[in-house]
Amino acid sequence: MPIRAEIIAVGSELLTPWRLDTNSLFITRQLNLIGALVARKTVVGDRAEDLRASIARALETSDVVFLTGGLGPTTDDINREVVADVLERPLRLDEQVLEKIRRRYQRTGMTMPPNNQRQALVPSGAQVLPNPNGTAPGLMLEESGKLIFLLPGPPRELEPMVVDQVIPAIRTRLGTETTLYRQLKIAGEAESRVDFLASPIYRSYADVETTILASTGIIDLFFYWRPLDADQPEAEGHRLLDELVARVRGVLGDLVYAEAEQTLECAVGELLRQQGKTLAVAESCTGGLIMQMLTEVPGSSDYLLGGFVTYSNQAKIDWLGVKEDDLSVHGAVSPCVAEQMAAGARARSKASIGLAATGIAGPGGATTEKPVGLVYLGISDGSGTESRKLQLNGDRAVIRIRAARTALDWLRRRLV
Amino acid sequence: MPIRAEIIAVGSELLTPWRLDTNSLFITRQLNLIGALVARKTVVGDRAEDLRASIARALETSDVVFLTGGLGPTTDDINREVVADVLERPLRLDEQVLEKIRRRYQRTGMTMPPNNQRQALVPSGAQVLPNPNGTAPGLMLEESGKLIFLLPGPPRELEPMVVDQVIPAIRTRLGTETTLYRQLKIAGEAESRVDFLASPIYRSYADVETTILASTGIIDLFFYWRPLDADQPEAEGHRLLDELVARVRGVLGDLVYAEAEQTLECAVGELLRQQGKTLAVAESCTGGLIMQMLTEVPGSSDYLLGGFVTYSNQAKIDWLGVKEDDLSVHGAVSPCVAEQMAAGARARSKASIGLAATGIAGPGGATTEKPVGLVYLGISDGSGTESRKLQLNGDRAVIRIRAARTALDWLRRRLV
Repeated sequence: MPIRAEIIAVGSELLTPWRLDTNSLFITRQLNLIGALVARKTVVGDRAEDLRASIARALETSDVVFLTGGLGPTTDDINREVVADVLERPLRLDEQVLEKIRRRYQRTGMTMPPNNQRQALVPSGAQVLPNPNGTAPGLMLEESGKLIFLLPGPPRELEPMVVDQVIPAIRTRLGTETTLYRQLKIAGEAESRVDFLASPIYRSYADVETTILASTGIIDLFFYWRPLDADQPEAEGHRLLDELVARVRGVLGDLVYAEAEQTLECAVGELLRQQGKTLAVAESCTGGLIMQMLTEVPGSSDYLLGGFVTYSNQAKIDWLGVKEDDLSVHGAVSPCVAEQMAAGARARSKASIGLAATGIAGPGGATTEKPVGLVYLGISDGSGTESRKLQLNGDRAVIRIRAARTALDWLRRRLV
Repeated sequence: MPIRAEIIAVGSELLTPWRLDTNSLFITRQLNLIGALVARKTVVGDRAEDLRASIARALETSDVVFLTGGLGPTTDDINREVVADVLERPLRLDEQVLEKIRRRYQRTGMTMPPNNQRQALVPSGAQVLPNPNGTAPGLMLEESGKLIFLLPGPPRELEPMVVDQVIPAIRTRLGTETTLYRQLKIAGEAESRVDFLASPIYRSYADVETTILASTGIIDLFFYWRPLDADQPEAEGHRLLDELVARVRGVLGDLVYAEAEQTLECAVGELLRQQGKTLAVAESCTGGLIMQMLTEVPGSSDYLLGGFVTYSNQAKIDWLGVKEDDLSVHGAVSPCVAEQMAAGARARSKASIGLAATGIAGPGGATTEKPVGLVYLGISDGSGTESRKLQLNGDRAVIRIRAARTALDWLRRRLV
């Protein structure tokens, strides 16, 4: 049986319509990597009785319980008190912790406000997890063979604490199963089509569990090795997974863009860098989104010269050299305009490649011949210029994301 | 006492590191508008025993329980069965529901797969909530004065069902408190400074509860009327809230950009449209993000001519007319380059206004004089050209968002 964990995110702000508990995603990923599963996630407010009930219930069904947030210096921050109460462990003031908090304030030239003394309260028997990035330390408690972690809410405090202290502690105390898995990242194809191609292969592996996740044009395939016979050596798991991945890649071909967690824009960037090529982009319906994705990658200035967001026809003419006649005869959403945009971006920037997108993201702007979701992509390089037609579903935001990702994926496939 | 609700999101995919339960935000907002509070949110997988325990516990402490997801046609989708089991209500096949599902398939030229028959199973005594946007209808059950809603997982199915059917049913069955509230949206200032200015005012209103939420440069102030004397007429609440808002606006001035839910880019767009002005943008460190935000607004082509993402120095020179000398003497991240970028964008597009951002988003590219987070904004219009220096905190993504939002807010404040 894998280790079962429960994550309880504490804070009334997480029960408003504006805040989501994102820490749980990070913790889940780290747990999954050591073969532990998250069985339940809960969000509770700052009411002691709700929190008390959630902790008690979590301890009944899970091996590891995480409480995130609720370690601040104000009286809203009740996690220390409630845990001490549920486990019947008196709180004591830890002088070492207090001294660290004081010194942290002194370093920035401030005096510790009296409130912060609360952050040095430690339930008896708890182990203090130092927090190099904030005032509140984390806490670890053991109770009847189960582990309870109290972690600070800010991600930049929580994340290193989980990696450096929490995961090693879980491995030491509870042991772990080795989870062997492989991941394939796929772009440019529908989930149903990918599954149609891959499922006859992965279904024939009884010792492999497959998960398929799709999100606006990007598909993740995960293959987990779960041997029916628990005595199987790990080497056999590696062999099976490698064989399965090779066979699935055989049918998916260049739809697969990575075998590890990586964004599409990062994969495109690596190819451009390896091949010493430069890129310029011309965007209309995507409104800067292709550039924004590409520039999210640090160091993208090495291969990305720049982009034109030509929202008006005049900008297409003046900045990219699109022919006025073609705009009036064929319209801005047409194969020839997409090609001229790509060629214009390349020529004006002297880049190796020009990439373009023009389309109707909606909700307005559609005609009977040109419905919402119609997008033309253009690509221009040393070997010529061509265009490609897309008909995308979704609302304005989804159409823009799909158009940008399909453009990046088209570029990627030409580079491989 | 306000109505207490609990939301249980069902689906193993929500326990992976990739998926967040976002439906709960929508439901929370709709409940808050009728004065109901969400007391707990839970995510459980497709294990019947976990779900059974969560439902039973929710019914102990909440007036309304929502189950989202888990209404699909496969055997993973167990919500109907588990609810029927917990409430001891036998499931029956609803012929009317089945007929609707069949007809839905026929309209698209397909035959209903046998699996989908499961979606027509209804616990005895449940009311069917029609789903015009999908096959699985919602279900409403009453149990000892409490309400249980089973809702489909896809947001485009769930959202209209909540607004059109669920909220009216809650109002009819449980009654509601009227929640009077006002919202102020603020940009361009730190949360602590906004609270320093506003708190002396709102603290003097004993009948008003204030919430302040900050998210990467945008601050929301909410004032809820919670009269100490429950017999107060609503008119008094409106009078108090209007007075409070006027006084807070008096100290915040043009930091406030909206009194209702609205994005900053939408507020900027409305001002440009009202004043008949056009805009062109030149971006370096923000990499297209300013344009991407502006073009998220449908109809933005009315005032937005286009944008240049000049990532390389050569693009700044060739496309915007930035002087090569200034780039080599002062560097790309300098007041004079920001001003030339803004003026160049305006001149090349013949727009009324040019807006520019150049900076160091990190993690690389910093020097001792120019640290990560240093950003210069430029603005150019008929009255001249000027620049502004920012020193922003955060990682690459946060710096880019803050820079883009500060640029948009600077433009907004010049327009008002």
